Amino acid sequence: ENKAAFARIYDALKAELLRDPAFEYTESSRQWIDRMLDYNVLGGKCNRGLSVVDSYKLLKGVDVLTEEEMFLASTLGWCIEWLQAFFLVLDDIMDDSHTRRGQPCWFRVSQVGLIAVNDGILLRNHISRMLRLHFKKKPYYADLLDLFNEVEFKTASGQMLDLITTHEGEKDLTKYNIGVHRRIVQFKTAYYSFYLPVACALLLSGESLENYSAVENILVEMGTYFQVQDDYLDCYGDPEFIGKIGTDIEDYKCSWLVVQALERADESQKSILFENYGKKDPACVAKVKDLYKELNLEGGIP
Amino acid sequence: ENKAAFARIYDALKAELLRDPAFEYTESSRQWIDRMLDYNVLGGKCNRGLSVVDSYKLLKGVDVLTEEEMFLASTLGWCIEWLQAFFLVLDDIMDDSHTRRGQPCWFRVSQVGLIAVNDGILLRNHISRMLRLHFKKKPYYADLLDLFNEVEFKTASGQMLDLITTHEGEKDLTKYNIGVHRRIVQFKTAYYSFYLPVACALLLSGESLENYSAVENILVEMGTYFQVQDDYLDCYGDPEFIGKIGTDIEDYKCSWLVVQALERADESQKSILFENYGKKDPACVAKVKDLYKELNLEGGIP
Repeated sequence: ENKAAFARIYDALKAELLRDPAFEYTESSRQWIDRMLDYNVLGGKCNRGLSVVDSYKLLKGVDVLTEEEMFLASTLGWCIEWLQAFFLVLDDIMDDSHTRRGQPCWFRVSQVGLIAVNDGILLRNHISRMLRLHFKKKPYYADLLDLFNEVEFKTASGQMLDLITTHEGEKDLTKYNIGVHRRIVQFKTAYYSFYLPVACALLLSGESLENYSAVENILVEMGTYFQVQDDYLDCYGDPEFIGKIGTDIEDYKCSWLVVQALERADESQKSILFENYGKKDPACVAKVKDLYKELNLEGGIP
Repeated sequence: ENKAAFARIYDALKAELLRDPAFEYTESSRQWIDRMLDYNVLGGKCNRGLSVVDSYKLLKGVDVLTEEEMFLASTLGWCIEWLQAFFLVLDDIMDDSHTRRGQPCWFRVSQVGLIAVNDGILLRNHISRMLRLHFKKKPYYADLLDLFNEVEFKTASGQMLDLITTHEGEKDLTKYNIGVHRRIVQFKTAYYSFYLPVACALLLSGESLENYSAVENILVEMGTYFQVQDDYLDCYGDPEFIGKIGTDIEDYKCSWLVVQALERADESQKSILFENYGKKDPACVAKVKDLYKELNLEGGIP
């Protein structure tokens, strides 16, 4: 029932944004935003957003929230879902991706194209609008803005590191190592996916984030573990189960697996990696996967 | 001497950003940002940024500011220059532009490409970082964040309206009218170029923006006048003087000139517009310009 209540609040938030007096919508621009939001904010599992509601309940030690509390916690949850939509719309453009959540990427929809860049910006701006509308009078309003700003900055910086590292790795695979992998993963994924929902719940509970640096460290560590699993499943997961066909090897990704392979490989095994990693040719991908098997990566690291 | 002092503060702000502890820079990612900032934030006339310093002096009624005041006013000025850089980097991608400020657009620089989308996001994020570092303790900190957020939202919404209107105009030129033109111009240009610098100076002076809605109205009106001039000069300005070759007719822009032409044209003149507006062919552009002459647009509106 958590999820149903959470879903209803999306409709209320969208309706508010579509009548925001800070812009004079025309009928067609209002329709554009309506469709853009449904297309990009919905369709995910809402793990991050729901996690704000769950964390807040745990912090308060209650099973049921008042309507007001549920609305505020869910609004923060939806802000994270909006943030995720913002990143995904722009990442898909940068990665030249084809599908997302089982449908064409937004920029590939007819009539959209690179207008999607501006739509991404608008998604980010909607977060500020929602926070202002519902939290302006709260004593923690500035902290909430700072939190979203800082986590967005960390995520975009992690994305930059990923893009630059992949460029460098294309010339010299030995640039990939566990330190670089960890740094990319923590900034690009862990802060917004794991730390942000709990930090939102803490602020909503009246806590000051300065007192919770241990919470931050643990959640970033959990996010790192999650991404290592994600890297593993990209290669070994059942496409039916994980909902996508992994292409980390083809895409020259600084995956946890290639980092482990580089650490374990002897010189002749390394040259197999250098020759075959990051190539679209299925024969090359197969050679990389054979090497992973030889190095016993699937079985796990002792 | 205003401009020299303002320029020196850029170096200080950039140096702070490059050692921001919120991200663990690698040597190559730090170099990337360093180069990206010089390439995109510098090279403009800094009218918007300098306008914060000038407005603040006028509000205080002094000719010379203390070093502290000069630093804070200039930091807000540079935040506006960073905001401008963010918009320009992304607009150039969306418009598929070639040059900007006499050099190739950032996304056309080798090794950059669509990484420029993320660089645009980082430019926006740097504003939050600078504001936090220098204004966190000020009583108007939340108002400053709200101001930049609201102006960014208005600008991105104006850009959306421009993109959607141009799409619709390509199918039916009569969608262009003075109301649509005014709305695009006010949101896309006037708020961030004219209102934002003065609003920053007001906040820095301890004023509350709620008390200055007349200031907002006047500045947005000035911004509208500026953009009408800009539309006029796109067609009639000396390319040597305005620093670019105008292509509003070729690009199907909802320019003030085409709006005036549509208002004054009879049915046969309208059909000339319908057939020739928005075509790359120089013969078509010439026919549109001939019609503008026939309608006496260059001479000005009585």
